[in-house]
Amino acid sequence: MLRLPILEWIKTYNQSKLSDDAVAAVIVTIMLIPQSLAYAMLAGLPPEVGLYASILPLFAYALFGSSMTLAVGPVAVVSLMTAAAVSQVATQGSPEYLGAAILLGLLSGVILMGLGFARAGFLANLLSHPVISGFISASAVLIAFSQLKHILGVPVHGHDMPSILHDLATHLDDTNLPTLIIGVLSITFLFWVRSGLKPLLMKTGMPSGIAGTVTKAGPVMAVIVSTAVVSLFALNQSGVSIVGVIPEGLPVPTFPDLDLTLAKELLPAAFLISIVGFVESVSVGHTLAARRRERIQPNQELIGLGAANIASGLGGGFPVTGGFSRSVVNFDAGARTPLAGVMTAVMIALTALFLTPLFEYLPKAVLAATVIVAVLSLVDLKAIHRVWVFSKPDFWAMATTILVVLGIGVEAGIIAGILVSISFLLAKIARPHFAVIGQIPGTQHFRNVDRHDVLKSEKVLAVRLDEMLYFLNGHTFEDAVNEVLNTNKNLTDLVLLCNAINEIDASGLEVLESINERLNSQGIKFHLSEVKGPVMDRLDRVGFKTHLTGQIFLSHYEAMCTLDPDCERNGKIQSAGA
Amino acid sequence: MLRLPILEWIKTYNQSKLSDDAVAAVIVTIMLIPQSLAYAMLAGLPPEVGLYASILPLFAYALFGSSMTLAVGPVAVVSLMTAAAVSQVATQGSPEYLGAAILLGLLSGVILMGLGFARAGFLANLLSHPVISGFISASAVLIAFSQLKHILGVPVHGHDMPSILHDLATHLDDTNLPTLIIGVLSITFLFWVRSGLKPLLMKTGMPSGIAGTVTKAGPVMAVIVSTAVVSLFALNQSGVSIVGVIPEGLPVPTFPDLDLTLAKELLPAAFLISIVGFVESVSVGHTLAARRRERIQPNQELIGLGAANIASGLGGGFPVTGGFSRSVVNFDAGARTPLAGVMTAVMIALTALFLTPLFEYLPKAVLAATVIVAVLSLVDLKAIHRVWVFSKPDFWAMATTILVVLGIGVEAGIIAGILVSISFLLAKIARPHFAVIGQIPGTQHFRNVDRHDVLKSEKVLAVRLDEMLYFLNGHTFEDAVNEVLNTNKNLTDLVLLCNAINEIDASGLEVLESINERLNSQGIKFHLSEVKGPVMDRLDRVGFKTHLTGQIFLSHYEAMCTLDPDCERNGKIQSAGA
Repeated sequence: MLRLPILEWIKTYNQSKLSDDAVAAVIVTIMLIPQSLAYAMLAGLPPEVGLYASILPLFAYALFGSSMTLAVGPVAVVSLMTAAAVSQVATQGSPEYLGAAILLGLLSGVILMGLGFARAGFLANLLSHPVISGFISASAVLIAFSQLKHILGVPVHGHDMPSILHDLATHLDDTNLPTLIIGVLSITFLFWVRSGLKPLLMKTGMPSGIAGTVTKAGPVMAVIVSTAVVSLFALNQSGVSIVGVIPEGLPVPTFPDLDLTLAKELLPAAFLISIVGFVESVSVGHTLAARRRERIQPNQELIGLGAANIASGLGGGFPVTGGFSRSVVNFDAGARTPLAGVMTAVMIALTALFLTPLFEYLPKAVLAATVIVAVLSLVDLKAIHRVWVFSKPDFWAMATTILVVLGIGVEAGIIAGILVSISFLLAKIARPHFAVIGQIPGTQHFRNVDRHDVLKSEKVLAVRLDEMLYFLNGHTFEDAVNEVLNTNKNLTDLVLLCNAINEIDASGLEVLESINERLNSQGIKFHLSEVKGPVMDRLDRVGFKTHLTGQIFLSHYEAMCTLDPDCERNGKIQSAGA
Repeated sequence: MLRLPILEWIKTYNQSKLSDDAVAAVIVTIMLIPQSLAYAMLAGLPPEVGLYASILPLFAYALFGSSMTLAVGPVAVVSLMTAAAVSQVATQGSPEYLGAAILLGLLSGVILMGLGFARAGFLANLLSHPVISGFISASAVLIAFSQLKHILGVPVHGHDMPSILHDLATHLDDTNLPTLIIGVLSITFLFWVRSGLKPLLMKTGMPSGIAGTVTKAGPVMAVIVSTAVVSLFALNQSGVSIVGVIPEGLPVPTFPDLDLTLAKELLPAAFLISIVGFVESVSVGHTLAARRRERIQPNQELIGLGAANIASGLGGGFPVTGGFSRSVVNFDAGARTPLAGVMTAVMIALTALFLTPLFEYLPKAVLAATVIVAVLSLVDLKAIHRVWVFSKPDFWAMATTILVVLGIGVEAGIIAGILVSISFLLAKIARPHFAVIGQIPGTQHFRNVDRHDVLKSEKVLAVRLDEMLYFLNGHTFEDAVNEVLNTNKNLTDLVLLCNAINEIDASGLEVLESINERLNSQGIKFHLSEVKGPVMDRLDRVGFKTHLTGQIFLSHYEAMCTLDPDCERNGKIQSAGA
């Protein structure tokens, strides 16, 4: 069902919110102009396409999106994925390339919206945090390297690390010195703005908030100064590559010719771009919403982002999503509603209509510098170490993602990350933790005999399986039970504590019945305790109780007390002591 | 490490075991001769290849296999898979077809042995019981239909159901009447032997065991009578298709020319055949071993079956595995060791050397009849119903397997079955069971408030998550916690009972920390209880306790008693009542 969140928040819209939104819109626009030009360049597209992708999508998201402060537009990772996908089907610079990028935006929009209506937001959960983190870090490195060509002023083709490195090495001698100087100065300046300018401004007495906002204008300052210098000294005649003439005006929204063969080729890439864009956007949205006790609805976000991408495609733009740094700026600048986004869109439209001549002499090296400085802040080395300490499977999923992104490419990287995570998950289930348990003296609580000082019964063996009992681990569990039976003789009963068995499938049921039979042939009764409600419902449906030689107990303590008099005594000791 | 189980059992070999093995060998040979001819025909190969595949593999398995009674040789499902795979790369009847089938056997042997040395027997666990059951039932139906051409005496190409049905329908008018009469009589006779002969023999006073053994000779009787009739009346001149001249003698074991391109093409099929053959063989082996309190080692079985398939390939045979009906006959006839298999092999070799002229006039319709009657007993409709009652996800995995086997083919069917099972498993983890819990009066046991009559604290909310806390379900869990917080106001503490959380990954850890932060901002302390040992170890490694606003309790009862005085009182009531 199509829901319009705007109908809810617009009711309480007022003067105060309007002025807050307007201030945020101005600041985001100043940040977004160089970014949108730069990300269009990263995607291999003409600079104006970046502006187009920052207009209609913002209107669409304002209508359908559920986050109050998410700022939608071209973002680094999605632009890189666009370049990787589109360069497979067309030559950069050709009209076919632009057409394919626009089609990719449309496809991505349709996929996102489809997933939203199908309430399939859960698909994003296939990407674990470490895989996302590794993917973003590796993509950032890849993006930074892909922009080095603009800093050096050399030609580089290809969107994967090996060919980028190869091309850079081949052309290193062709480096254009003025370009290099502009590039290095810009990078240095932008890094300084990030780390050094804010403390400096605050020392002069400027409040922290304003100082923070001023530093966001760093890229615009670099753009203005460098454009002036290049224009004054005609450095473009010394080989400094400039943005060049950008057509003024706005494209009339049109539905592009639908090339079904091309659409089919782009479909897998569009799907991956949709998922990655959605995950990035939702994680930003969640973080910001939580700070103000607001909430976002993932399925509504799919519809919002889908509408934004369809709008982008219709308006001549390429795939967009909610950007991290941009949304944080929007939030910090005080945006209250998506109307801030609408105002940003109007200002970008005015820029596209009237201000594009100002960008003619803007050196590409400066745009590349803004991209490099922006993406390097996304590299999170600490996360890699933290994951290594916490969980080796997560680390290997992350490492695989990073290595495949850098060695092969972004799409292969994300797929490898998902496959490795799922494989480790299946391997974990296939090798469940299994323990013989005993009673912790003075309590009704039972724990692993290897970890705790517990009381064990001579006749009644109690074991616990810490996993769903499924086709992946049924045989392993059966072997484990057989092994403990070999080392514990003279038993009368075996009790399986089921409080960690969250599900039993048909294969698991057969294993339980086979254990029941084998125990029966050895004269040992088989009991279950603390079976979960949903699991018990299922066992009841096939009359499992009627085959079971033993009983099913509500609590393990009750089971042990019923089957072994010693246990009851311990309960009494505890009672007396309490 | 290469282990030879024969070195263990040969030590205790004696006269009594020898005579038991010899009796079993004779009975299995009588059963195996028509079967091996028939399964070679099913695989699209000359009949003698079936004999070759029943000689060397039995020696190899006797050396390396771990089951005492498994009878190795050509089996129905693997023969069907061989036909499906080999007909993709060569034309039936050509020397290339035979060469490819031999190569498939070798490849399958190398794969099985490799998996054995890598101790990768667990891979077979990817096939759930319902998928195996559905696969075997559907393959049986497919095999039965594929043999109808021999019963009708019409040409049918293709190994998938749609083309078999299409060809049968097209050629129905060309049915050869004498062939049809022989086929229908054979099928009727063989079904009667299975169901009616044994009771009849027992009525005459024959002991059940001997009567059972005599019925196993049914196919041989059909072979003898039909061959005599066809030969006497020269029915082959009336269009009855016969086996024809079978070369006498044995192939000299040779290593076939290795065609790497062909090997690469056959590799996926060889892998699937290996897994399916292994699963079939191991499940038979397990069942029989359990009856005599013996055990089989899955990884050793891989090596044994690998050796058998390599031997089959070297000896001019095709993929083999441990067959169900044949092993049961071997077991019931009293086989004690794999030496029974060696003796069977010798007798089959003598047959190939001296008796093949006897099979010249054997009508193919009779072989087809033995296959049809054998495989139809594998169709297990009851299993389908039982799975439907017990578990819908298992049912859908089974149904998908059956439909894809019948609609597309055996390989696609097995892959679809695995993928559907894994998808449902992931979906289950992604939608974990979550419950608010309370104390069962008079006990220290806590259960779901919706299912049990329990005592709930006003200030301390207790919840339980019944699943590993993983990337697939972290967000869902967080949403569930937020929801219960919205409906339970004025809380001071939230306790998460972790006895069913079998694992926490890096994404899960972030969710726990995010919940901890959110609760903290609302002035609610977050506690954990009954955290599993391995999970606690992991949390300790990243110092989770230091961020946690609350405590980690050994038992949930202890947590509630510490945080909520009411709980303690209930504990005392219980103590007093005990």
